[in-house]
Amino acid sequence: MGGVELIGLDDVRSAAANLAGVAVRTPLLAAEWAGGELWLKPENLQPIGAFKLRGAHHALARLPADVRERGVVAHSSGNHGQAVAYAARTFGVPCVVVMPDVAEPHKVAATRRLGAEVVLVAPAERATTMAAIAAGRQLTAIPPFDHPDVIAGQGSVGLEIAADLPEVELVLVPVGGGGLASGVATAVKALVPKARVVGVEPAVAADARESLAAGRLRPWPVEQTYRTVADGLRTQLSELTLAHLVARLDGIVTVTEDEILRATGDLLHQARMVVEPSGAVAAAGYLYRRDELPPGKTVAVISGGNISPALLARLAAEGEARPASEGDARPGG
Amino acid sequence: MGGVELIGLDDVRSAAANLAGVAVRTPLLAAEWAGGELWLKPENLQPIGAFKLRGAHHALARLPADVRERGVVAHSSGNHGQAVAYAARTFGVPCVVVMPDVAEPHKVAATRRLGAEVVLVAPAERATTMAAIAAGRQLTAIPPFDHPDVIAGQGSVGLEIAADLPEVELVLVPVGGGGLASGVATAVKALVPKARVVGVEPAVAADARESLAAGRLRPWPVEQTYRTVADGLRTQLSELTLAHLVARLDGIVTVTEDEILRATGDLLHQARMVVEPSGAVAAAGYLYRRDELPPGKTVAVISGGNISPALLARLAAEGEARPASEGDARPGG
Repeated sequence: MGGVELIGLDDVRSAAANLAGVAVRTPLLAAEWAGGELWLKPENLQPIGAFKLRGAHHALARLPADVRERGVVAHSSGNHGQAVAYAARTFGVPCVVVMPDVAEPHKVAATRRLGAEVVLVAPAERATTMAAIAAGRQLTAIPPFDHPDVIAGQGSVGLEIAADLPEVELVLVPVGGGGLASGVATAVKALVPKARVVGVEPAVAADARESLAAGRLRPWPVEQTYRTVADGLRTQLSELTLAHLVARLDGIVTVTEDEILRATGDLLHQARMVVEPSGAVAAAGYLYRRDELPPGKTVAVISGGNISPALLARLAAEGEARPASEGDARPGG
Repeated sequence: MGGVELIGLDDVRSAAANLAGVAVRTPLLAAEWAGGELWLKPENLQPIGAFKLRGAHHALARLPADVRERGVVAHSSGNHGQAVAYAARTFGVPCVVVMPDVAEPHKVAATRRLGAEVVLVAPAERATTMAAIAAGRQLTAIPPFDHPDVIAGQGSVGLEIAADLPEVELVLVPVGGGGLASGVATAVKALVPKARVVGVEPAVAADARESLAAGRLRPWPVEQTYRTVADGLRTQLSELTLAHLVARLDGIVTVTEDEILRATGDLLHQARMVVEPSGAVAAAGYLYRRDELPPGKTVAVISGGNISPALLARLAAEGEARPASEGDARPGG
């Protein structure tokens, strides 16, 4: 990975400056129901319901004005598409989002509501379709994670964590393509050197853990990664994000599908937060894998809230059967 | 009301200073799904799930240390009890909460989890029971709204709104006992004189609107006010809160029970927020009574999120049947 240049703290700070007044400055929320020293960073409160707005907006902000005006294109299973659509609308430029035809219908509808043209294709054709549209219509492709500006934008989450809890000892971040983890690790390790930053990944899509252990990309077939309910974490690392994670991440733990769903329900009933499964993965690490983690003051990044109405209804119904007892309040204690 | 002294902006500022690092500095969240210029102030994100922590903590902070150390007592149908329990635990002092035996079980359990001794009595006996406990055990009673320190604490919500959206034109606040509305109106009218502050109240518990129109307290019988699903808004104004509202509130609109429940569902499905019915009342005013309100940039205070698991399950199930369409996204448009 000798040729890959990593972003630095200054890049994250520039991104944060671009994002002022655009992304919500999310607070840290103490989660004492989790029985320990846990804070949640609720990126589900962003306008599109996920952190992705940060990277997408910063990437568009960095384009030369004449290039940006021609428009942008993205491919996404959901939140990144909404993020690019939202950013394009902010700048008043055209936007096309290529989505897999298996994407959650509520995410497709939400992307259209933001003014984007949505093109549905088979999952395997997303990248080629996007490239064809970009070339044919002179649009700039905005990647979901494999770009220094996108990583710098996501890193603003880490800046805010360090500012709000300078004594933080552990930051847990979900890992899909690795953009959020790369950015957060960059900011947190620079500002709070003794803090640990640990990724959390679904066990059935643990390509990042394997790649990190091998020191090189070890992609998993999509038939495997698509088994996880955490639909935002089915993607693979890129050379760029792997290089950031090798240099700056302190490790990765994995969680089961059952743990992800239980954590999604815990966040709904205990923290009163609507979180999608991908957004609950870092909290699942704290709640159910604490014995694999360093102790101390912990922040879990809640990356998004775009849960399907059907799953929300199912988890809400399960909560009705929960006893409102002390035991229930401390699933991992 | 000649003898009633109103709190001022300085009182609210002192409260805000006491609350730094205790109450969450909640952001404003743009709610463009509502089809207009609406921002939500999500006080459901506070540690106890409601704004009440602000007033309770400031009231305890203002007690002389030797008085505070003997302990505090409160009576409450829910959120105020949790707020006093939380504040008492922060200061390490004993706490008794007298609750009506009809209170939601999840609120009773939550109050106990915060370390308070809970005493359940018939609704009509709450005040006398509290007075007896206060006298017998030398505890200081912390009222839910009828106290200048409590009003000043709640007013910090208004300070934050004025700081985050100085061009705000309308602030909507739910009205029960009137402490939140009194405090918010005090701060907002002082800092943004041309902004309007309007209360929102359940039509079946509209004692505040009637009292404001009459210029004197017009309490409604509890048999009437207990009909509303907004269980935090069943209480009556006091002379102190009425005096603040007469001087500083620009009006009150009322919403139906159906509108309150629909708004609670809208917040769950469109804003991805878990809100209790009382917490959705101000948003219901915007969504369903916009023709009765001044136009312009509006903030609705979402006062709390402690919804019962049964109602959450019901609203979540209803959302599954909603179309993910543009029309659905703009209930008031």
